[in-house]
Amino acid sequence: MMQTPLVLTDFVKRAERYFPKKLIISRTAEDTIHRITYKEFGQRTRKLAAALTKLGMKRGTKVGSFAWNHHRHLEAYFAVPCAGAVLHMINIRLSPEHIIYIINHAEDEILLIDGDLFPLVEKAIPLLKSVKHIVVMQDGLELPETNLDHVHSYEQLLAEAGEGYEFPEDLDENLPAGMCYTSATTGFPKGVVYTHRSLVLHSIALGLADSLGLRENDVAMPVVPMFHVNAWGMPFAAVNFGTTQVLPGPMFTPALLLDLIEQEKVTLTAGVPTIWLGTLKELEQKPRDISSLRAIVCGGSASPKGLIQAFEEKYKVPFIVGYGMTETTPIVSLSTYTSEMEQWSKEKKLDIRATQGLTVSLVETRIINDHGEVPWDGKTMGELKIRGPWIADEYYHDERTAEAFKDGWLYTGDIAVMTPEGYIKITDRVKDLIKSGGEWISSVDLENALMTHQDVFEAAVIAMPDEKWQERPLACVVLKEGRKTTKEALLSYLEGQFAKWWVPDDVVFLSEIPKTSVGKFLKAKLREDLKEQKL
Amino acid sequence: MMQTPLVLTDFVKRAERYFPKKLIISRTAEDTIHRITYKEFGQRTRKLAAALTKLGMKRGTKVGSFAWNHHRHLEAYFAVPCAGAVLHMINIRLSPEHIIYIINHAEDEILLIDGDLFPLVEKAIPLLKSVKHIVVMQDGLELPETNLDHVHSYEQLLAEAGEGYEFPEDLDENLPAGMCYTSATTGFPKGVVYTHRSLVLHSIALGLADSLGLRENDVAMPVVPMFHVNAWGMPFAAVNFGTTQVLPGPMFTPALLLDLIEQEKVTLTAGVPTIWLGTLKELEQKPRDISSLRAIVCGGSASPKGLIQAFEEKYKVPFIVGYGMTETTPIVSLSTYTSEMEQWSKEKKLDIRATQGLTVSLVETRIINDHGEVPWDGKTMGELKIRGPWIADEYYHDERTAEAFKDGWLYTGDIAVMTPEGYIKITDRVKDLIKSGGEWISSVDLENALMTHQDVFEAAVIAMPDEKWQERPLACVVLKEGRKTTKEALLSYLEGQFAKWWVPDDVVFLSEIPKTSVGKFLKAKLREDLKEQKL
Repeated sequence: MMQTPLVLTDFVKRAERYFPKKLIISRTAEDTIHRITYKEFGQRTRKLAAALTKLGMKRGTKVGSFAWNHHRHLEAYFAVPCAGAVLHMINIRLSPEHIIYIINHAEDEILLIDGDLFPLVEKAIPLLKSVKHIVVMQDGLELPETNLDHVHSYEQLLAEAGEGYEFPEDLDENLPAGMCYTSATTGFPKGVVYTHRSLVLHSIALGLADSLGLRENDVAMPVVPMFHVNAWGMPFAAVNFGTTQVLPGPMFTPALLLDLIEQEKVTLTAGVPTIWLGTLKELEQKPRDISSLRAIVCGGSASPKGLIQAFEEKYKVPFIVGYGMTETTPIVSLSTYTSEMEQWSKEKKLDIRATQGLTVSLVETRIINDHGEVPWDGKTMGELKIRGPWIADEYYHDERTAEAFKDGWLYTGDIAVMTPEGYIKITDRVKDLIKSGGEWISSVDLENALMTHQDVFEAAVIAMPDEKWQERPLACVVLKEGRKTTKEALLSYLEGQFAKWWVPDDVVFLSEIPKTSVGKFLKAKLREDLKEQKL
Repeated sequence: MMQTPLVLTDFVKRAERYFPKKLIISRTAEDTIHRITYKEFGQRTRKLAAALTKLGMKRGTKVGSFAWNHHRHLEAYFAVPCAGAVLHMINIRLSPEHIIYIINHAEDEILLIDGDLFPLVEKAIPLLKSVKHIVVMQDGLELPETNLDHVHSYEQLLAEAGEGYEFPEDLDENLPAGMCYTSATTGFPKGVVYTHRSLVLHSIALGLADSLGLRENDVAMPVVPMFHVNAWGMPFAAVNFGTTQVLPGPMFTPALLLDLIEQEKVTLTAGVPTIWLGTLKELEQKPRDISSLRAIVCGGSASPKGLIQAFEEKYKVPFIVGYGMTETTPIVSLSTYTSEMEQWSKEKKLDIRATQGLTVSLVETRIINDHGEVPWDGKTMGELKIRGPWIADEYYHDERTAEAFKDGWLYTGDIAVMTPEGYIKITDRVKDLIKSGGEWISSVDLENALMTHQDVFEAAVIAMPDEKWQERPLACVVLKEGRKTTKEALLSYLEGQFAKWWVPDDVVFLSEIPKTSVGKFLKAKLREDLKEQKL
C-alpha cells in the first residue's frame, strides 16, 4: 500500500478542490461579519505561509497565536503546520506570568496576536526571549500604536505576499503540527504537542456517523475557543469535510451566539456548560429559532441534567456530552446512543446523556483500581486511563511526564465509574477524591446533589484531614442571592440521597468559590484557606 | 503523540468490549440461518487463530479462503491477520487454471474452504505446491469424503482449541493483513496486498457521515462476495462499529436477498448492478417491505439510470454509486450529494447519482490527458489516476507493477470525465476507447445509449481497425427475446444523441456478449471474433 502520509496539507487541498464556494463566516466585531470562501481561505492560507516563511519561519519553528475564533486564526491553523512549522495556540485566559512562561518554554519565534488583545501582551513582550516578530491580526492594514519593533500587520503581509506558494510535499505524518499548554494543579502549565497524524485521525473521527458525524452539509460553530485544545478539533475537521464554519470571534455572549445560530442556520455547535446555561437563560428572555441545530456538544466539565433536559425536551436539540482533555486532542468519548437505547425511557436516556459517553473508535479507555479494571456496575470507582493515536505520550520538555504517562497509557487523574453499557461517568478528580476509612467518597456527586437544592448557587466539597477516618468531606456552599438556609437543612437534604458516611461533617457558607482561569473549582486553594476549619 | 498502530486487532477488541450482544446473522444454506453475537464471534475468532497457529500458521504465513459470505469467513477475516498472518481471499469465480496459479503464486500454506465448494477444489489440490492443510468450513463436525490427507473440520478445530488466546500486541500497522488477485486483460491475475493500516483507515472512511456513514445502529448486508475486494470493506468496518451484519452465504438469489432485507430489517446493502436489476424484477413479481433500507450501494460496473430511478422513486431508497477496484481496497468515490445539490431538479440529481461520485476523504484523484488535468466540463476525457493510504503501490511479485504504478500514483486504465462539481464519471477503459481521427469515442456511452433502446437487451461497442480513421466503432447487439429491429433503426436512434462521427459504422447482431468471470464484457474476445467483419 502507498505510504501517503496523514498530513493537514491534504485538508486544505481537498477544501480548495471540492468546496471552493463553501463559506467561512466570522464575526470579528459585534457589527462586522466576514464571509470568505474556502477558495479564498486557501489563497490566504498559502499567502500567510509565504509571508511567515519570509519572516523566518522554518521547519519546526514555533509560531504562537493569541487570538479568538475567526478566519485569520483558521488560516494560521493550516498555514503554519502545512509549511512544516508548529502552531502554539496560547490560552489567553492564563495568568500573565503563565503566558510569559509558556511562550518562553515553547520558544515561540513569531506571535500572531488579535488587535484587541495586543495591549494585553504589549507590556510583556520584552520578557519574551525567543520572539522575533509580532503579527497583528485585525481588519484593515493599520497597526496599533506601539514603540515595539518588528510589529507587522497581518493583512499587510498577505497583501504583499505573492500568489502560488506551494506547501512542501515531503512532510512526515509524525511531525509536530500544533501545541497547547494545560494548566497544572501546581506549577507552570504543561505543554502537549500534536502531530499531523494525530490531528488528521482525530478530524476523521469527528466525521464518523457514530461520533459527531461532521459533514459537508453541516454549519458548524465551535464556541469552545480556538486557543483551547484545537477548539475540540472542529476547525481542522471542517476544512477537510468542506463544512460551513461560523466563527464567533471575541463575541461569546449568549445573545450574539444565538443570533448567529438563527441567522446562519447553525447545525452543530460545541462549548462548555457555562455557555449553554447562559444561552438557555437568554432563550427564555428572547426566543430565537434554533431549529436548525441537529446537536449541541458539551464538555469541559460535568453537564447538569437540567441543562440537557431543557435543550432536549423544550428545544428538541440532542445535547451530547463529550469527554477529553488537552492531552487527548481532545475527543475520547461522547454520550451518543447505541441502538439498544433508542427504546429506553426518557429518564434512562437522560442518565446516559449525562455520562461522559462511549469511547470513540481508535481510542482505548480503562477504569482501573488496585484490583485491575473495575466492574461495569456504575458504582465502583477507579482512575481513567487512555491510549490511542491522538493521545499524548509526554509533556513537552517537562519532567512531570513521568507522573501521567506510564506503561503506554495516559493516566488522566480523573476518577470514574463504568456503566453496564460501557459508558464512562467521571465522578471526581483523583486529588479531590475523599478517602474516608479506606473507602472513596466522590466530591463531585455531593456537589451535584447540593447544587440541585433550591437555595444553592454553587457548592464545592473538599477533603479535610481527620484523625480517625483519615479524611472527611466538608461542604463549601454559595447561596443564591437573597436566599437563606442552614447547615442542618442542607445535610438532611443529602441524607436521603447518600450513604450516611458520605454526608459531609460540616458546611461552610462562602461568598464565592475560587476558580481557575477556565472556570474550574480551585479546590487546592479552598483546602488551604479552610485548613483551620474545625470539623 | 502515542505511536499506537492502526491494526485490525483493535476492531475485534472493540466489538467484544462494547457490542458483545450485537449479532452476526448468516445464512449458510437456504433453510439455515445462524445468529452469533460479537461476544461469540470474538471467542471463535480467537479459537480459530489458536487452531491455525497449531497447524503451523506463523507471522506472514499466507492462508487462503475459498468461501462465501458467512460468519466463519468473517472469523477468518480477523483471526488470520490479527495473528500476524495474511488472508488470501480467493475469487472462486476465476478459471481453475487461474485459481491454481494464484494459490501457488501467493504460496498459501493453509486453505479454508466452504464444504459445498470443496468438490470443486479437491481435484486441483495435488497441483497446489505450498498447501499443507485444508480446513473445511461447514455446519457440523463431519468432513466431506476424500482421499486427501491433512483435511480438517473447521468446527472440530474450534471445538478442540482452548480458550484464552491473546492476539500479539506488537503488530506493525504496515504488516500485510490480506490479499486479493484481480484478473488481467491478458495473462494471469495480479495480486494486491492490503496492510493493517490500509484496512483500518478504509474501514474508518466507510463510517464517515459523508461516505456510507456505517454505524452501530445499521444492519449491513454485503452482497458483494467476501472473496471480492474485502466485500468492499464492509465486514471489517462493521466489526469496529458494532454494526449488525447479515451475511447471505452462497444464497445470492434476488428472492432470498429480499427475504433477508425484509426479515432482518437491513438498512444498508452493497452489490453490483446485476444483483439490483434482479431484485428489482423480483420485487415487481413479489413485493417485499424494504423500507428499512436507508441506502443501496452499487459498483463494479456502470449503473443504468433506470435502475437508480426505480429504487429512488418507486421504493424511496437512495441508490449510491461507488467506484473502486481491487487495487483500491476499494472505496475511492461515492455519488452522495453535497448540500448545493439538495435543491436540484430530479433529473440533475439523477445525473449525479449515476456518476462514480465524489472522491472520499484521504484519497486523491486526478483525470489527466496529454495536457495535464482535464477541465471540469463533464466532457474532456482523460485517464483516472489515484493515490492515498489504501491505494496499492505494486502488484505482488509481479513485473506488471511498472505498467500501473508510476510517480506515486495508480494509473487505473479507466477513462473518465470530471463534472463541474468534481464528480468522476467513467466513460471507458483505456483499452476499449475508440481512437477515431485523433479524437476519442467512448464505447461505454454508445453502449449505454443502445441499451436504452426498447428492443436491445445488451450491447457492446468495440474498435475496429480503419485505414482512414485509424479506428471506427462497431456495435455488437443482443436483442431482447422475441424482439426484432434493424441496423438502420439502431443507428438512426443513436444519430439524435451523438455527434455524427461517434455513430458506429455497422451493427452485428449476436446471441450473447462474451463475459469475464465477474460479468464484465470480454471485448478483447469480441474484437478477436469479429476481426474479419467488414465495416
